[in-house]
Amino acid sequence: MINPSKAELERIHQRIKSMIHRTPVLESTGLNELLGAEMYFKCENFQRIGAFKMRGAAYFMHEILNTHGEKIHAVVTHSSGNHAQAVALAAKLNDLKAYIVMPKDAPKVKVAAVRSYGGEVHFCEPNLQARTTMMESIRSEKKAVFIPPFDHEHIILGQATAAKELIEDMANLDYLLAPVGGGGLLAGSALTIKALSPTTEVIGCEPEMADDAYRSFKNKRWQPSETPNTLADGLKTSLGKLNFEIIIEAVDSILCCSEKEMLEAMKLIWERMKIVVEPSAAVPLACILGNREKFKGKRIGVIISGGNVDLGDFFGLLDQKRSV
Amino acid sequence: MINPSKAELERIHQRIKSMIHRTPVLESTGLNELLGAEMYFKCENFQRIGAFKMRGAAYFMHEILNTHGEKIHAVVTHSSGNHAQAVALAAKLNDLKAYIVMPKDAPKVKVAAVRSYGGEVHFCEPNLQARTTMMESIRSEKKAVFIPPFDHEHIILGQATAAKELIEDMANLDYLLAPVGGGGLLAGSALTIKALSPTTEVIGCEPEMADDAYRSFKNKRWQPSETPNTLADGLKTSLGKLNFEIIIEAVDSILCCSEKEMLEAMKLIWERMKIVVEPSAAVPLACILGNREKFKGKRIGVIISGGNVDLGDFFGLLDQKRSV
Repeated sequence: MINPSKAELERIHQRIKSMIHRTPVLESTGLNELLGAEMYFKCENFQRIGAFKMRGAAYFMHEILNTHGEKIHAVVTHSSGNHAQAVALAAKLNDLKAYIVMPKDAPKVKVAAVRSYGGEVHFCEPNLQARTTMMESIRSEKKAVFIPPFDHEHIILGQATAAKELIEDMANLDYLLAPVGGGGLLAGSALTIKALSPTTEVIGCEPEMADDAYRSFKNKRWQPSETPNTLADGLKTSLGKLNFEIIIEAVDSILCCSEKEMLEAMKLIWERMKIVVEPSAAVPLACILGNREKFKGKRIGVIISGGNVDLGDFFGLLDQKRSV
Repeated sequence: MINPSKAELERIHQRIKSMIHRTPVLESTGLNELLGAEMYFKCENFQRIGAFKMRGAAYFMHEILNTHGEKIHAVVTHSSGNHAQAVALAAKLNDLKAYIVMPKDAPKVKVAAVRSYGGEVHFCEPNLQARTTMMESIRSEKKAVFIPPFDHEHIILGQATAAKELIEDMANLDYLLAPVGGGGLLAGSALTIKALSPTTEVIGCEPEMADDAYRSFKNKRWQPSETPNTLADGLKTSLGKLNFEIIIEAVDSILCCSEKEMLEAMKLIWERMKIVVEPSAAVPLACILGNREKFKGKRIGVIISGGNVDLGDFFGLLDQKRSV
């Protein structure tokens, strides 16, 4: 298992600093009073491209350029979500070409975002087979390096820097909570906590409707997800193998929440904290709300994973209300 | 005209510091690139009660307690908006009773917010006559002090502290933009700029559908609004008399935007900056977008006035999409 030291985490952080924002840690008097706890929200919705994914893509990019240098001219990935934007921007910042394979039914707003960072979008049929086939063909034709979304050491170590910044700003946390989809953020956070704040308990948070990490953790056996049906689109991905191996060693527990609890938590964050977060990012607060006694009086770090949510419907409604 | 010195503004700020948050100033690389300008957003949506109104209510409260001390036991106001919450919270922080007169059709979420700060809500018919009559009757019966929403020196001087904090964080602004409804925020901001940063131009921003400040400023004559019909509910109020007198002296110009431009600006702020702002708060950015040449290459301070928006419809839509 990868097991970075404090010094290694510091080196990784230094290597990507010019490509990422140091995001703020926010508190809410209202939410703290509601729960009788002290919560510190690490706001990766304010990260470049609107999600923590920028960290992993930046570190992967740094590592391949460091190893293969001038031989690299292009990168490729397949994604319909935040990883697509992260790879496109990381490539742009390093003057590389980025080819992004997206399902042809991907939301227009996501396609536009990838293009705004200079990514070249290639559409494929909306299934994993079509995605990997097209990605492989671009990889060999364009001599492009594949940047995986979560199941890779560099990606996990890049995501680890979010928890590192949080721990630097807020020491002595009783708990650190992060959502888990592919597991890059949770595995990275757990490695950071092991190295920098070993008394803090790390808790993964997952929607019941996509509970492969919960089941895998409980049964100590990697169990991929089956037809996840959650509004937390960022957490539909199946847990990665390497991610599972780290999580089983370094994470203390995994909690689940219902879809209803997730939406209630998301609304609380929007209303009380006045920040835009995606459904996935509300899963940790939903798990706190569902387990109040456990968290009462505790000092809790919460990673808000991202803020990329389609606002089209909401603004459509507002637009209908305007008079001219 | 009131004309506070730098030292007086500092004293006012000190007097309310324990009752308000110092809100952050945010920047957006994406929005700056889009407009070719440097914009600094003073985020009063992160203020206590979710809007700048807390500042004026806090300073009014301080002044009456300072002047009349132990004789004061209760305050009263009429408002269906952010001022109601501000008075309720300011009263709670000073162990006073707050009576809030609200129209009986006020949104439930606003009534609940006032009650959550301990305010005692009294419902009246939804017209100004009924509001003032009920307020006057409570004032005399309960010996309560009336806290006006904008047309008062203390309120204006309290609101002036938002621009003061912004100027302290970001010096040498070419422009400072603030929305104008009753005119407390704009008048206060202009007084601050006169005292602390006289080379900065102050621009009031207003929806075309509620353009009483624009018309009053242009005609140099106070012209109350007539049936304003804008989605910016915070800006429907008619410009105050005292506020007008300050604005005509200390503000450089007033710009207007359409409802469509306001919603586009609001969507841009939510999408790019990941913060929740109310329609009124998007009016300054809408005016920048409608006057791009004027603002190109400039260093612009923008006061984001508040973030209290009814999210019920949006979360209703999301809730319909969930599977369980």
